Order: sequence, then structure tokens, then C-alpha cells
Amino acid sequence: MIVTVAIDCMGGDHGPSITVRAAIDFVRKHEDVRAILVGLEDKIRPFLENQSAGRISVRHASEVVAMDEPPAMALRSKKDSSMRVAINLVKEGEADACVSAGNTGALMAISRFVLKMLPGIDRPAICAILPTAKGHSHVLDLGANVDCTPEHLLQFGIMGASLVSAIEHKDRPTVGILNIGSEDIKGNDVVKRAAELLKESGLNFVGNVEGDGIYKGQAEVIVCDGFVGNVALKASEGLAQMLASFLRQEFSRNLLTKIVALIAMPVLKNFKKRVDHRRYNGATLIGLKGIVVKSHGSADVFSFTNALERAAEEARTGVLARITERVALQQPQ
Amino acid sequence: MIVTVAIDCMGGDHGPSITVRAAIDFVRKHEDVRAILVGLEDKIRPFLENQSAGRISVRHASEVVAMDEPPAMALRSKKDSSMRVAINLVKEGEADACVSAGNTGALMAISRFVLKMLPGIDRPAICAILPTAKGHSHVLDLGANVDCTPEHLLQFGIMGASLVSAIEHKDRPTVGILNIGSEDIKGNDVVKRAAELLKESGLNFVGNVEGDGIYKGQAEVIVCDGFVGNVALKASEGLAQMLASFLRQEFSRNLLTKIVALIAMPVLKNFKKRVDHRRYNGATLIGLKGIVVKSHGSADVFSFTNALERAAEEARTGVLARITERVALQQPQ
Repeated sequence: MIVTVAIDCMGGDHGPSITVRAAIDFVRKHEDVRAILVGLEDKIRPFLENQSAGRISVRHASEVVAMDEPPAMALRSKKDSSMRVAINLVKEGEADACVSAGNTGALMAISRFVLKMLPGIDRPAICAILPTAKGHSHVLDLGANVDCTPEHLLQFGIMGASLVSAIEHKDRPTVGILNIGSEDIKGNDVVKRAAELLKESGLNFVGNVEGDGIYKGQAEVIVCDGFVGNVALKASEGLAQMLASFLRQEFSRNLLTKIVALIAMPVLKNFKKRVDHRRYNGATLIGLKGIVVKSHGSADVFSFTNALERAAEEARTGVLARITERVALQQPQ
Repeated sequence: MIVTVAIDCMGGDHGPSITVRAAIDFVRKHEDVRAILVGLEDKIRPFLENQSAGRISVRHASEVVAMDEPPAMALRSKKDSSMRVAINLVKEGEADACVSAGNTGALMAISRFVLKMLPGIDRPAICAILPTAKGHSHVLDLGANVDCTPEHLLQFGIMGASLVSAIEHKDRPTVGILNIGSEDIKGNDVVKRAAELLKESGLNFVGNVEGDGIYKGQAEVIVCDGFVGNVALKASEGLAQMLASFLRQEFSRNLLTKIVALIAMPVLKNFKKRVDHRRYNGATLIGLKGIVVKSHGSADVFSFTNALERAAEEARTGVLARITERVALQQPQ
């Protein structure tokens, strides 16, 4: 089986200089993949060098969605944007998945409009991987939905569990719900009711997970509404950046600490590698009738390649079919 | 002016072995303070050694609220708990503030029942200090309220700003609202409406702050509902613990890395000191007719002393009067 990934080459802070290079690495690394590079052809070609790799093709798209463009505007007025054309390729079956580092709101709006939702799913969610003391966990929603009903949270649980069981070949991944206490009585009404639904769902539900439980790896899938999830994710990013910058400052304080830094470099590098967020790049817009992966806007080649690999793996392992089957089980007969 | 702090000596994971020692340090360090040690007298005395410090007294209380006791139970059935007696001392004017490392829910329930709310404030909030790239910020609510109206969030803003202007002698501290985007249109309805109220409030409102903005120090006071705040705080704690443990693991991997660790020790110590959460111990239960400070349950002597100092400083600088004045300004004339 060949997996074809459509790449919005114009998205992200750096455009084709990153996305095209990552596509080349991706195709070189995996024999079973093809890449369709979507965007302004004259911006893409220079980065293709003399690639005669038969598995890379270019699809011209005349418009670009700006990083700060209102999603509704991007949806209505840019019918030939690289983002939209890439999503269309998925819709029409020419690609098995698409990846963009562009404007998240626009990617969500256009994906939802073009691809529509899977049967039984009301809302798409953003699902990303976070590193934990035990490995990593999948957390959703990270910002697509600011208000969720208990039923939405149940659907997120089903989608997350289906995703993990597919791409990580796990039978019944553990599912937890993000809450502010470990007891059943904690939390707001939506979360309490969602916990009841998850308990009755047949999923491997482990109950409430507190904020620190995410990083303790208390569940393989953690469900939350998009407001809470987004704040938790960004607070974590902000804290990690602050700690890294404090560490740098301490090691560059004077000549002596700089020498110490040189000596400690290999250890610090191993540490850095272990918590390198680039390894986890690629959030899935889950719930759609098509695989759409969002890369961080500031992704570098290594990071963007990881997002491409995530998209390909979801296509290979049939995540969408698995979600559809699992949701059908949930429907009243 | 002498400031008297009532200390629930039985609360926390370690009880008097920590709380009494911290009280001794606190009184030695500050000439203007007195401490009333509340709890089981025979458990407290042994740690008082031969302290003849005239500024420490013991008040026997026959019961102890357990760390996992349901708040309603603690409130109804333990009228002579160390926690309740300490709060009563504030109510009766014998103490200017009280500090407990005990059960948060019980402390909140008993404080609210005994002390009541300040005029114009509907709900108490938990306000703590977080370190930022620029220094530190005050964030509230961190878990007292799982559902907030826009008016509650406005009150949190007023209380937070009054607190900071008192204890940090700042005229108009900046106030931000935690949200999932920096644009006005982002967020759920409650947050959007709260932002409008804050804009009209006369506070020095700087608008939306995203999760990472907390640690960038984008506002001196950051307002959020207790669910979001609690998740963000605990996720941060969990991430910091995970990173610290990864760093330790890398430095203790083999003999060579252990030698490197010895060499890097002074630098790592400076780093650790800079982000030491013990320095920020002590969350204020704000909005009550009395000063109540909650210490981390696992606090050590240094950490608990900081909570005592925070309580004393709030009493010295008249935080309650300042909140009351500021709220009065807000009321329709």
C-alpha cells in the first residue's frame, strides 16, 4: 500500500524552505509514501533541487492563507489557497492525508467545510501528543471547542482511544478525564456527567486525571474541553521555555559557568533530546472524514517531517475506519 | 503595630514537626509578629523546645481535620479542630491572619462559614504567586470555583489588583484574563463578557493572556475560573517535576555523568534556587472578612515560613480594607 500525503507547502512561519525539505526527507525515509506539494509552484520548485524522486509531485495553488487571517475569510474568499487545495485532494481521494503548518482556525474551518464530520461525531477536536514520565499521552481537545457538552467529551474519548489503538497497536488504551481532583464528586457538572458517560462507554476509563497527572502518564488518552486543554498546553510550553531560558542564563553567567556548560554539554544535550517537543510535532484534527494534521507554525525540517510521518501512520493504520466502527458501537441500536 | 498570626499546627503532611519549627523561625526573623500555635498541645510542646520567646503562645484544640476528610463533614462535626479554632481567632480579632497547610476544601468551607464574605464579593478565590520570566504574577482563581460568571471574574480582578497594590506597593498593577487567543473574539462567552467588564472597570486591564503568557509575565494579576486555573497550575507542577526528574536521571546515568554533575552542581543549584516553588508557598483565600493563607500540604520549614510571612504582610498592608474600598468604587452609586 502506498500512502499519499498532500502538503500545504505555503503554511507556517517559513513556508517552502521548511515544508519542501521535510517532504524530501520524508519520501527518502519511507518507501511506501508519496508527497503532493501544494502551493505556489515558483516558490516550491527552487527547494526541490534536482529531485527526480518519482514520489514527489507539485500541485499549483494560486493563493496563500495568511497566518493571522480570519478563518471565515480564508474559507469564503480563498478557494484556491494551498491549504484548501491540499484538503480537497483528501476529499477527492487523491491523497490519504494532508498536513499544514498554517493558520489553525482556517485549517479547522476549511477541513470541516470540505470534509464534513464522521458519522456520530458532532465536533472535530485537536489531538496532540505530550511527553510523560512513562512515555507519552494523547490529549484532546486542545482548542477547537471552547464549550463542550458531556456527549462531546465522550466522543473525544472514543476518538482518542481509536486513534491510539490504531497507531500504537494497543488493544484498550486507558482513557482519563482532566479534572481538578481525583474524587468522583470533583469538577463542574459537564465533567462529572462526561465521566459517567465514559464509565458506561465500554472504554478503558480510568477516571479523573489532575493537571499533574498528564505528565505522570496517568492515562494514554486524556479528554478535556478545548479551553482547558489549550490553556494547559500553552502554560506547559511557556513554563518549559522559561525554565530552558533560566538554565541557559545560569550556564552563561560568567567564564567559569561557561566552561562548566561545555563540560556538561553532552548531558544537557541528552536531556534536551528527551524533552524535545519537535519529536511530538503534529496535532491531529480528529473527527473529520479525512486525515488532517496540523504542524506547529514554527516547525523546522525535523519537526515538520514528524508531522508528515504522523499523518502517514494514521492513514496506514486506518484510524478513520476504526473511529467509525467504535462510534457505531455506541449508538443506540 | 504587632501582627498576630494564628497557625493551624496540625495541618499538612507533617504537622507540628514543620509548622512549629516554622513558627519559631518566623518569630525570630520578624520583631513585629506574634504566633498563636493552635492544635493538640501535647503534640506541639515537644517542638517548642525551650522557647521562652514571649511572642509564641499555644492554644489547645482537641480535634484535627484529616487531609482527605470531606469539607462538609469537617465543617459540621469538628467544631474544635485546630483549623476551625485558628479561623475563629481571626473572626474574634485575636489574630490578624491565619495559616493552614491542611485540607483545602475544609479550610475554604470553614473560612467561608466562620468569616463570611467581604461586602460586594460573591465568592472567595484562591490566589497564588507563580514565577515568571519577569519576576512573578498573581493568579486567581486556582480551584475554589469551578463555574464562574463574568461578574465573579471581574471581582477576582478587583481582589487581585487590590492584593498586589497592597503587598507590592504598586499603584495600578496590570490585570489580564486567561484565554485561548490574544484577539478579543477568542474564548467562551463568559470570558468574553468578563473581558468587557474588566475593560470598563477602571482597572489597568491589559486584555487576554494565553497560557504561555502567564510565564512570560504578561500581567501582574491573571484572572481565570477555578477549573482552568487549577488545571494550569497542576499541569505546570507536573511538568516541572518531570523535567527535574529527567535532568536528575541524565546526570546520574553513569560514572562520567555523575562527575559532570558534581562539576555543574553550583550552576544547577543556582538554577534550582531560582525556580524553587517553596519561595512562592502560600495561597491566599481571598474575598473573606479575614486573612486566610493556605500552605502546600507537603511544605517544609522554609516553605511554611514563607506562607506565614505572606499572611503577616497581608495583615500589615491592610489588604482587606483595600479590597473593600475598591469594590465600593465599583458599586452603582
